[in-house]
Amino acid sequence: MDPDAVAKAFVEHYYTTFDGNRGALLNLYQEGSMLTFEGQKIQGSQSIVSKLTSLPFQHCQHSITTVDCQPSGPAGGMLVFVSGNLQLAGEQHALKFSQMFHLMPSPQGSFYVLNDIFRLNYA
Amino acid sequence: MDPDAVAKAFVEHYYTTFDGNRGALLNLYQEGSMLTFEGQKIQGSQSIVSKLTSLPFQHCQHSITTVDCQPSGPAGGMLVFVSGNLQLAGEQHALKFSQMFHLMPSPQGSFYVLNDIFRLNYA
Repeated sequence: MDPDAVAKAFVEHYYTTFDGNRGALLNLYQEGSMLTFEGQKIQGSQSIVSKLTSLPFQHCQHSITTVDCQPSGPAGGMLVFVSGNLQLAGEQHALKFSQMFHLMPSPQGSFYVLNDIFRLNYA
Repeated sequence: MDPDAVAKAFVEHYYTTFDGNRGALLNLYQEGSMLTFEGQKIQGSQSIVSKLTSLPFQHCQHSITTVDCQPSGPAGGMLVFVSGNLQLAGEQHALKFSQMFHLMPSPQGSFYVLNDIFRLNYA
């Protein structure tokens, strides 16, 4: 399958899940997964999802501006780099964000998130 | 050495070189290196540096806002995620950018850039 198509499908799935039911992101991470969220380092699927579900807003909507992807090496991983807007419920202006994911093939034939780095751009 | 310190040192070296003598970035890439620059995919150190040296501005100055890093897996790689401002000579306003690097250990004991993805945030 075309890597760009895989990246795009992952990104759509990720943000649809984030905006609809953050807890369900648990399936996308594993024990060795890492998240750096606005500089805060978190490791392991449970801790990552605890962080994401405890963010200080209930509803949000991501809209994606760009998705870039590259293979990350012989282990079959894929780097996905996203830029977009994050609209929080009740806020007038959307926030710009950038996020990168390092996806690794899982034994089930799909991908899991090994690395995740998120930053707001304060535009 | 502390991975955060390595990442910070790399980032300083990279942008100082970019702003001072773009052609010298050749040493940081190898034949298998990939650059995605504003969506355009380029492979190989020579092609990458040709792209960077032919950008339509002579002088620029990067200033770094954030640097995040994570290990990328058992091969000893490191993911470095940067946000910052890019001031072009003669322009009034700086451009915001995000960039990610995947650094891999080189036989010489340092790192080279395997993956590089650059995006302007159009703030």
